[in-house]
Amino acid sequence: MAYPFFLFLKEDQGMLGNCIDEVRKQGTLVHNITNYVTVNDVANILLACGGSPIMSDEAEEVEEITSICSGLNINIGTLNRRTIEAMYIAGRKAKELGHTVLLDPVGAGASSLRTETAARLMKEIKFDVIRGNISEIKTLSRGSGSTKGVDADVADAVTEDNLDEAVAFVKAFASETGSITAVTGAIDLVSDGADCYVIRNGRPEMGRITGTGCQLSGMMTAFVAANKEQKLKAAAAAVCAMGLAGETGFKYMREGGGNASYRSLIIDAVYNMDGKILDEGARYEIR
Amino acid sequence: MAYPFFLFLKEDQGMLGNCIDEVRKQGTLVHNITNYVTVNDVANILLACGGSPIMSDEAEEVEEITSICSGLNINIGTLNRRTIEAMYIAGRKAKELGHTVLLDPVGAGASSLRTETAARLMKEIKFDVIRGNISEIKTLSRGSGSTKGVDADVADAVTEDNLDEAVAFVKAFASETGSITAVTGAIDLVSDGADCYVIRNGRPEMGRITGTGCQLSGMMTAFVAANKEQKLKAAAAAVCAMGLAGETGFKYMREGGGNASYRSLIIDAVYNMDGKILDEGARYEIR
Amino acid sequence: MAYPFFLFLKEDQGMLGNCIDEVRKQGTLVHNITNYVTVNDVANILLACGGSPIMSDEAEEVEEITSICSGLNINIGTLNRRTIEAMYIAGRKAKELGHTVLLDPVGAGASSLRTETAARLMKEIKFDVIRGNISEIKTLSRGSGSTKGVDADVADAVTEDNLDEAVAFVKAFASETGSITAVTGAIDLVSDGADCYVIRNGRPEMGRITGTGCQLSGMMTAFVAANKEQKLKAAAAAVCAMGLAGETGFKYMREGGGNASYRSLIIDAVYNMDGKILDEGARYEIR
Repeated sequence: MAYPFFLFLKEDQGMLGNCIDEVRKQGTLVHNITNYVTVNDVANILLACGGSPIMSDEAEEVEEITSICSGLNINIGTLNRRTIEAMYIAGRKAKELGHTVLLDPVGAGASSLRTETAARLMKEIKFDVIRGNISEIKTLSRGSGSTKGVDADVADAVTEDNLDEAVAFVKAFASETGSITAVTGAIDLVSDGADCYVIRNGRPEMGRITGTGCQLSGMMTAFVAANKEQKLKAAAAAVCAMGLAGETGFKYMREGGGNASYRSLIIDAVYNMDGKILDEGARYEIR
Repeated sequence: MAYPFFLFLKEDQGMLGNCIDEVRKQGTLVHNITNYVTVNDVANILLACGGSPIMSDEAEEVEEITSICSGLNINIGTLNRRTIEAMYIAGRKAKELGHTVLLDPVGAGASSLRTETAARLMKEIKFDVIRGNISEIKTLSRGSGSTKGVDADVADAVTEDNLDEAVAFVKAFASETGSITAVTGAIDLVSDGADCYVIRNGRPEMGRITGTGCQLSGMMTAFVAANKEQKLKAAAAAVCAMGLAGETGFKYMREGGGNASYRSLIIDAVYNMDGKILDEGARYEIR
Repeated sequence: MAYPFFLFLKEDQGMLGNCIDEVRKQGTLVHNITNYVTVNDVANILLACGGSPIMSDEAEEVEEITSICSGLNINIGTLNRRTIEAMYIAGRKAKELGHTVLLDPVGAGASSLRTETAARLMKEIKFDVIRGNISEIKTLSRGSGSTKGVDADVADAVTEDNLDEAVAFVKAFASETGSITAVTGAIDLVSDGADCYVIRNGRPEMGRITGTGCQLSGMMTAFVAANKEQKLKAAAAAVCAMGLAGETGFKYMREGGGNASYRSLIIDAVYNMDGKILDEGARYEIR
């Protein structure tokens, strides 16, 4: 049945491309409460994809800041007591206003504070999207975990061998939480509980750059906020865009290049991407 | 009267070039209380122009830190209660010592906290320079505003059509506040109330990089601190240097380049700039 | 005696190379409590050398975070009351677990808070390594100082003329503190009190990039943590690796390049470095 399936994919990919075009059209403004490690890259990738970033983590102003935005990106990568308070306040306000709200549970499993903060945020705020690596999402699923720092545990990795099981897990997690769930790694999975995008864009070298996950979360917030009538597709489009940018950026690597140059080339590739390019480069199936 | 005006400009431009040469000669040390989004670029552009950066936002030490510097750059881009306190303490001390103090009211108008903090800082500290986009400066002028995030509102933009009005506004604001005022955008305006530099360096693509404004504020603090006998000229020179670096950097963009590469190329262009290059590339008139 | 000395060096250099190979083999996880200016570069250089970074400065979680790591890098570059508390807690826990703990006393001498925090940390935590510029280490030695911001004072610089005296100073400081001491600058010195590596890798242009010192501290923590049976050698290897990366990166500078491009090229060079390359490029003697 390869032929009809191929046709189906081609039509679908066309729609993915629309998602980035919408961000460029709307200039989607995203409020980020994010870690100070990768915040500059998050800002630059949001500008690269046609969105606009604003960062604020002060409890006293986050209601106002998030009110002028379309999406809120909450990333717990360098959380502290002060910024955790801001996450709750901003999250509640953004949901009240019908904005898109995303959680990136960086390092959930690496400390109780991270695991519990992510869990409590999920209880108080119905996130539109949760995006993390497989170890983080497994931690959220079990309520506890053993993440190896901020990277996924090798034992958890999604591979062709355990793909069916992984798809089932992500679908179940998305159903239970009511949040579109994106698990990114060598193979990326994005599900709303019913369908699951299995995405094979990207390159392994992306794992040697800090913050590609954080960048994706920022960009995904913009994609979903700009395409509220098709959130699953928009989330999948952001994953494909990031992976495709990794492929394109790698082509421009020069002799002597490494992870620092690659980091810029990926953002550059997003900057030069439009719906047509995304449609042609996106590699995924729906299960 | 084009001919004599041209001659006048040429002489004047020669003096702009001196401003960057002085920074390189003095190795001007600038204390920055700035946001964590663009702080690395602010540090690198200060090094690029021949200055030296130090960052500190802890109330307990900012008096000492600012005392060993020549200039203080206060940027409210990710302000919080703790850092706001440090801004007051450092600002008062720096003025007491006769240092150059600059305010970058990032996002004034986007939240009451930002608008009020900027307003109170301006009441307590007589800033040598205030640099922002047109929406931010209009907010400070009115005491309230409706900034679209951290970017200027399109409706506010300075264009050739409303230039006379904009020049009059900036002159009036500079007169009222007693601070040299730099409003940057497609056309940049820098005034001390009497004269107004109208600057046409730069490229629109610079708006797609996060932090070109923050970088300019850092560099402007160094330029003014190193040229205290001609502050208006030094502030204008910094604006021309930033815009010219945007033009030069763009020439070095390679195939596949985007905002992330461009960001580095602009700082690189400042690194390679001297007074002669600045004089030859500066494009401005005085009104 | 040039010939046997040369042979000795060659053998020794072979062992330096092993140090980076070990980091790549182990994927050494380093907990960083570091400043927000250069944190992204610290993360990327740790990934570049084969390690893995995690950043956390919240007192409530640092014990757990540091427990899953092999090394702890404490950098006081933008210290505040909240993060200072986290430094003590993490430092004590890491030592209790036998982890490698490094102190980078950024700006010691520039404020009492920095000088005293560094001094108290040294009293409470027996650091495996202390890495700073000569002015910072002199400040720690005297208990007070006059650092010019975050850069070394020219008057303090280690040169060929005062090398004997500088080597004696660093040896004495290492003996007194019981910490391997790395003083970096034009000539780098790394000593455990008995021996002192005198290293001549690197380029002066590295001083025009923000954070090469912070990056080295992060990478050195990984090198020492991955080579606990030969800590002095590992610390020296990290210094050689950073300097050599500066030399290699500079070769790839293009027309129009400056400090921002150079910053990426240095991290790229580390990314492409292995033990063999390090052995061939390391330039040092032991005194």
